[in-house]
Amino acid sequence: MNMTEENFKVTPWEIEGKVDYQKLIKQFGTTPVDKNVIDKLKNKTKSKQLSPFFRREFIYSHRDFDKIIDGIDKNNFFIYTGRGPAGKMHIGHLIPFMISKWFQDEFDCNVYIAMADDEKFVFKDKLTFEEMEKTAKDNFLDIAAIGLNPDKTFFFSDIEYISKLYPVALKFSKKINFSTAKAVFGFNNESNLGQFFYPAIQIVPTTFENKTCLIPAGIDQDPYWRIQRDIAEKLGYKKVVAVHNKLLPPLQGLEGKMSSSITETAIFLDDDSKTVEKKINKYAFSGGQPTLEEQREKGGNTEICVVYSWLEILFEENDEKLLQRKKTVSLEKYFVENVRNTWLKRYQKI
Amino acid sequence: MNMTEENFKVTPWEIEGKVDYQKLIKQFGTTPVDKNVIDKLKNKTKSKQLSPFFRREFIYSHRDFDKIIDGIDKNNFFIYTGRGPAGKMHIGHLIPFMISKWFQDEFDCNVYIAMADDEKFVFKDKLTFEEMEKTAKDNFLDIAAIGLNPDKTFFFSDIEYISKLYPVALKFSKKINFSTAKAVFGFNNESNLGQFFYPAIQIVPTTFENKTCLIPAGIDQDPYWRIQRDIAEKLGYKKVVAVHNKLLPPLQGLEGKMSSSITETAIFLDDDSKTVEKKINKYAFSGGQPTLEEQREKGGNTEICVVYSWLEILFEENDEKLLQRKKTVSLEKYFVENVRNTWLKRYQKI
Repeated sequence: MNMTEENFKVTPWEIEGKVDYQKLIKQFGTTPVDKNVIDKLKNKTKSKQLSPFFRREFIYSHRDFDKIIDGIDKNNFFIYTGRGPAGKMHIGHLIPFMISKWFQDEFDCNVYIAMADDEKFVFKDKLTFEEMEKTAKDNFLDIAAIGLNPDKTFFFSDIEYISKLYPVALKFSKKINFSTAKAVFGFNNESNLGQFFYPAIQIVPTTFENKTCLIPAGIDQDPYWRIQRDIAEKLGYKKVVAVHNKLLPPLQGLEGKMSSSITETAIFLDDDSKTVEKKINKYAFSGGQPTLEEQREKGGNTEICVVYSWLEILFEENDEKLLQRKKTVSLEKYFVENVRNTWLKRYQKI
Repeated sequence: MNMTEENFKVTPWEIEGKVDYQKLIKQFGTTPVDKNVIDKLKNKTKSKQLSPFFRREFIYSHRDFDKIIDGIDKNNFFIYTGRGPAGKMHIGHLIPFMISKWFQDEFDCNVYIAMADDEKFVFKDKLTFEEMEKTAKDNFLDIAAIGLNPDKTFFFSDIEYISKLYPVALKFSKKINFSTAKAVFGFNNESNLGQFFYPAIQIVPTTFENKTCLIPAGIDQDPYWRIQRDIAEKLGYKKVVAVHNKLLPPLQGLEGKMSSSITETAIFLDDDSKTVEKKINKYAFSGGQPTLEEQREKGGNTEICVVYSWLEILFEENDEKLLQRKKTVSLEKYFVENVRNTWLKRYQKI
């Protein structure tokens, strides 16, 4: 599904322009996360608490997630997510793993995490095999630091685990022809042969257990799952279900997506406090008022503040404390002094 | 290279119509095997004897084979060939392995034999994974019976050995785009994603040693090697070289190719003597004369006789004896009684 006509573009490999999530739901044909789903889910949790991702509507869309909710506390699903090792990771990259951890904490599900090293190698023109291998190792450490339950989590690299993936990938690949792949992924004359095969590889872990596979990911990954859902039952597997999260905004404002390739938009996991401070002071689009007096009186304008949105999405689970932050004189200072230091300690390379 | 305009068609997956070998050499841009090559090769052998495949011009074309001849007795090459397990094997399928054996006997080279199980699975529409696996096992036994030196021969299945093939396949796949693949292999809208990736897999074993890889195969496999030769040096590997054999004629006449899919054209390795006899009496296009008297006087017309051509290509190494066979009253009877029984004994499943 190539969306150039719509002035913004979401494919598995590119996200450009301002994203309109309601439009995405329509275009991808997914279902909005509604109150019914939210309430049922909350009711099934151990903690009787929803993750802020759900509470604050950061997870906004799904595919058939409602179909597994009734048995979600009875171990009826497993989670599959992954990472393409294109470079070092920023705070936005952690979201699918944090969502996975929440599901695992609440429902004791198994989590499978793929390092899509093959994907990044064939899609990133200038990425050498050696660079890709080094990045994959670093990324694994960053993801491990999330603290998933080691007894219920399986990390693997596509390339290292290929002997288990390949036979099933062949079966899926035989059912996907060029016409379909072109329409769904926008392949063209320049696309290379590795790119053509990769969708079949990415689909395989959805078949790792004889339970429903739940994917927490951006909606840009949806084309893979749509194809999986078309084919899976013909091959004796279950259709995948998915929940879709929004994008973490870049330093420059609430539009668009934090991106590793534009360093100034991102806070990287290995940025030290000084670097974070510098980036925020220099680049962050904040909701600060023109004068200190106005700021004291009205608080920051959190509607447009990037730093506030990060607290909301990632760093402040407590709703009351989040509300207090609206009144913080300098959110930037708060972020650097409080959040970043905790973060750094937590994500020390293990 | 799709040759429909020329009234015959040779792609890696299809061979149709009467094959004009001189035309093929022109169209594929390969080199005829000439006296110079033949003489040099003979001179380098241990036995100072050429294989009948060379002596009788059954190997008619090559790519850069002349470039390795000077050092061919100094272990400067290895052989890579293979088999797509589409069904049971007929006598024509043994040719690349018999050529390999000759090279190994004369030059002590290593031989790598791929079971292209992935290829056949994605290219044969109705072939199930389970049928393919069973066929691959049977085919391995048939090939093993050729008697290659076990210390210098490595058999592998693409699927089982994928963990070694995949990283290098990714590197080649990244250098082959859809335009090239379409032009070279004739891919179209119906081609599936497994078919697209397969060329990258087939190329990998040409890099197994830091020596020149020699491929003995039909010229229909040439597109793979042309692509390998375009890319190999950019990735730090050597360009492959090849020798091309003609096709074994089917029972029905010297045109075309023995084919497993048309059972009446082929002698299978597991046909018993009775079946062979029946097939030959019923279907073989022979050079027999109209009357027994004429046959005694003139001998058979070996120019058009399928059975004679099989003796020439596969079963009668001795030139003098071959000449005698021209006078045989009933070549069919001779074939059934002498050749087939020896054959059966030799190719008992090991």
